[in-house]
Amino acid sequence: MAENQNPPKQKPVQNAISPRRADDFPEWYQSVVTAADMAENSDVRGCMVIKPWGYGIWELMQAQLDKMFKATGHKNAYFPLFIPLSYLEKEAEHVAGFAKECAVVTHHRLEAGSDGKLIPTGKLAEPLVVRPTSETIIGAAYAKWIQSYRDLPLLLNQWANVVRWEMRPRIFLRTTEFLWQEGHTAHETEEQALEETRRMLDVYQNFVRDHLAIPVITGRKSAGERFPGAVDTLCIEAMVQDRKAVQAGTSHFLGQNFAKASGIQYLSREGKKEYAWTTSWGVSTRLIGTLIMAHGDDDGLVLPPRVAPTQVVIIPIIPKDEQRKEILKACGAVAEQIEAELFHKENIRVEVDQRDIQGGVKTWEWIKKGVPIRVEIGPRDLEAGTVFVGRRDKGPKDKQSYPKEGFAAQVPGLLQSIQEAIYDRALAFRHENTKVIESKEEFYAYFTPKNEEKPEIHGGFALAHWNGSPEIEAKIKEDLKVTIRCIPFEEMQQPGKCIFTGEKSEQRVVFAKSY
Amino acid sequence: MAENQNPPKQKPVQNAISPRRADDFPEWYQSVVTAADMAENSDVRGCMVIKPWGYGIWELMQAQLDKMFKATGHKNAYFPLFIPLSYLEKEAEHVAGFAKECAVVTHHRLEAGSDGKLIPTGKLAEPLVVRPTSETIIGAAYAKWIQSYRDLPLLLNQWANVVRWEMRPRIFLRTTEFLWQEGHTAHETEEQALEETRRMLDVYQNFVRDHLAIPVITGRKSAGERFPGAVDTLCIEAMVQDRKAVQAGTSHFLGQNFAKASGIQYLSREGKKEYAWTTSWGVSTRLIGTLIMAHGDDDGLVLPPRVAPTQVVIIPIIPKDEQRKEILKACGAVAEQIEAELFHKENIRVEVDQRDIQGGVKTWEWIKKGVPIRVEIGPRDLEAGTVFVGRRDKGPKDKQSYPKEGFAAQVPGLLQSIQEAIYDRALAFRHENTKVIESKEEFYAYFTPKNEEKPEIHGGFALAHWNGSPEIEAKIKEDLKVTIRCIPFEEMQQPGKCIFTGEKSEQRVVFAKSY
Repeated sequence: MAENQNPPKQKPVQNAISPRRADDFPEWYQSVVTAADMAENSDVRGCMVIKPWGYGIWELMQAQLDKMFKATGHKNAYFPLFIPLSYLEKEAEHVAGFAKECAVVTHHRLEAGSDGKLIPTGKLAEPLVVRPTSETIIGAAYAKWIQSYRDLPLLLNQWANVVRWEMRPRIFLRTTEFLWQEGHTAHETEEQALEETRRMLDVYQNFVRDHLAIPVITGRKSAGERFPGAVDTLCIEAMVQDRKAVQAGTSHFLGQNFAKASGIQYLSREGKKEYAWTTSWGVSTRLIGTLIMAHGDDDGLVLPPRVAPTQVVIIPIIPKDEQRKEILKACGAVAEQIEAELFHKENIRVEVDQRDIQGGVKTWEWIKKGVPIRVEIGPRDLEAGTVFVGRRDKGPKDKQSYPKEGFAAQVPGLLQSIQEAIYDRALAFRHENTKVIESKEEFYAYFTPKNEEKPEIHGGFALAHWNGSPEIEAKIKEDLKVTIRCIPFEEMQQPGKCIFTGEKSEQRVVFAKSY
Repeated sequence: MAENQNPPKQKPVQNAISPRRADDFPEWYQSVVTAADMAENSDVRGCMVIKPWGYGIWELMQAQLDKMFKATGHKNAYFPLFIPLSYLEKEAEHVAGFAKECAVVTHHRLEAGSDGKLIPTGKLAEPLVVRPTSETIIGAAYAKWIQSYRDLPLLLNQWANVVRWEMRPRIFLRTTEFLWQEGHTAHETEEQALEETRRMLDVYQNFVRDHLAIPVITGRKSAGERFPGAVDTLCIEAMVQDRKAVQAGTSHFLGQNFAKASGIQYLSREGKKEYAWTTSWGVSTRLIGTLIMAHGDDDGLVLPPRVAPTQVVIIPIIPKDEQRKEILKACGAVAEQIEAELFHKENIRVEVDQRDIQGGVKTWEWIKKGVPIRVEIGPRDLEAGTVFVGRRDKGPKDKQSYPKEGFAAQVPGLLQSIQEAIYDRALAFRHENTKVIESKEEFYAYFTPKNEEKPEIHGGFALAHWNGSPEIEAKIKEDLKVTIRCIPFEEMQQPGKCIFTGEKSEQRVVFAKSY
């Protein structure tokens, strides 16, 4: 090797995903989505196609949330996709919040123009807005349905698609069309509506913790970050691996704002006409993006077992064709045993990858898809009566041999151990990247990128005292792109001094950059 | 009684639904929907609100169909709501079929005009159509995803809302927005695509028979009734109680039409570029309307147990307040026992109606909602150790006492017996109202209302020979509003003579009026 050449680089670690998280987090994210075959952008700007692997995760999220909603007394219903413009206008803050991003239907027919090209005809007397959220259209129904206190509480949820025209779309995180659920409830008293708002936030927190293995901070939004038209917005905030925050779910106390806008009145126990107190709460396919960014590694997606469409994949290793039949038979038998085992009361989701391609290629595909447990069975295993097991929460080469006899019975325990390991890692990461900050200087330093080329390397969550001023909040956002993610409920409710003004502060709040 | 008064009328039968089926079927239908609290029209013309009882039925339909789709190798995915106009134009027949009923998004923003009213702004360069069906947008994705025969078959389904602008909406049956599933598959060979088309029709037939308790005739549509762009449309046709037909589900063999329009090509096993063969198939919330019209009676909805959101309701009869506690306790205990029983491998869905209203009022509410089994428990039952049981397939007064001990174990058998009785009744009704017709005169007489005031009283299904001519088909439609519902597969495949022309006919086809 000639001397004038560059010195040999350090041998690069081979990873399935390029670039690595540390090198370019946004690009890494996009690569994971592609490598795991979860979703892709469509030709309609901002609208995604959710592919079977991504949709399978969403189905598991839906099934669990739906169970939790029903257990807390809610029923599902379905309201129209289209909202008359006049409905949207009823709540001033609400329409102001959504007007800039509304898809508007203006015609109901297509006809060939003089050049043969189709043009919209059949102009509507009143344009229709594709729902960005359904408070106003559901409010109109509730106004009809609710007559007396006996009709309350009214506790409904809908699973639906919504559209918010998105100028800077990012798959799963910010898309023009997305899938979600929206709960809408009406109550007799303020107290009951407040309780509901908090109850559903707790449901979200528990779901995200126990199923998605993501720890979240709960609290309320500052006035500037509230849902348009809400009195109070509660939220769960997750930290992902570039140390930014993701608002993963919100629960809104709407006071009587929407009840007044829509005319939701009831005859009280005292025989008086009163406005109902309402709430709304939702989570969306954004949770899938959060999941990817919270747990994924440089080899791709890492799925918590409880939301993995396939929890165990069995990969036949067939070096010689004459062994195919025997090895496939062994794989099938192990699959059957595992399938009969229960993990959190459900049969384990297991798949034998029978495709006629090389075992190593298969293994990497499943790693990229984030499947929790890989079981390889080859000729040597057949001889030794073993299976060769890889866990997605460990390195791709870190595999362990188990006796085939009795292995199936160990799978629920392994899945639970993976679920917990993923959660523990996310929690430790958040702890490492959360800092109590005592001065403005320290705050600005914390959020100022150390490396110009990697602006995403910055501080994580900052816990700091703030005087409650929207002007300070706006200045910080302008200077650093940092916002108040939430005003936590319990922890940190001690008064102190605002680090920006020296004024009185009621409690520390959580600052972070965010998605 | 004075002589000049009218003679006393026959004592009217008291029914929960007014009018009765025999008096005004369309009005009866609307009354059942309202009385069962299933759905209502919204202020957006043609768009319905599906209320919890209606949506609960849809959820059960979805769960079962989803299981059947997965068991036949399909996975779920999700494609965009919006279709670029240029996509729709790719298949000429397809766009011609849907252009007249498309909701078109032309703007993506709202701004206050000079009068303060919101007006659409942000005009789109290319208008977007709200999907009336997704062949074209899914075709665009398939064209990207499918490269080689190894990528085939591709078997996907989506659960979604679709919009077809409806000039004469009728709740559940014909609504501007409706919910449905649409399967879209691509195959290597024509034969495989044909097999898939038929397989999914069989899935629909089995589902509708075993779950909705509705017998259907299966067959293919005549050319005039085909899905726009399809080579062949297979269908299931149900008869409802005004003897009209309802097309309850369709499965389309699309040949290579959409593959050519969207460019879905694959490298064959022989190394040649070939167009894929595709299919699509769907059922919708129209099934709920079919269910109502197939089984409902003059007391309201009649639900087959397998799709009843509540299969057993327990109604406490509490004449004296001091017995409340004891009776409610007994009801709870019976509910718990029933809930633990299995009906088709699922826990029985049971509810105790604890509302503080009169028992008789409750009973009628549950009758109107179509709940299969009502169990009344009052003071006398408590004493005698009995429960008082009403079946929805029998008259409201036709109740039977059962010993409380051991009753729960009988519930699965009772549910099965109700499921079968409802099916048998529907099948017998269809047999009674299906006629082999041998002449044009007989045909016209069969379909000419006998009673001018009740035009819905007409013949049912007519099995007649037809020469295959679209002109004859059009003439019959014009004269009688009767169409060819389907050309059956197996039965009646014997040649004969067309009753309209005397020409050769390959087989009898099914004629009927329809929804």
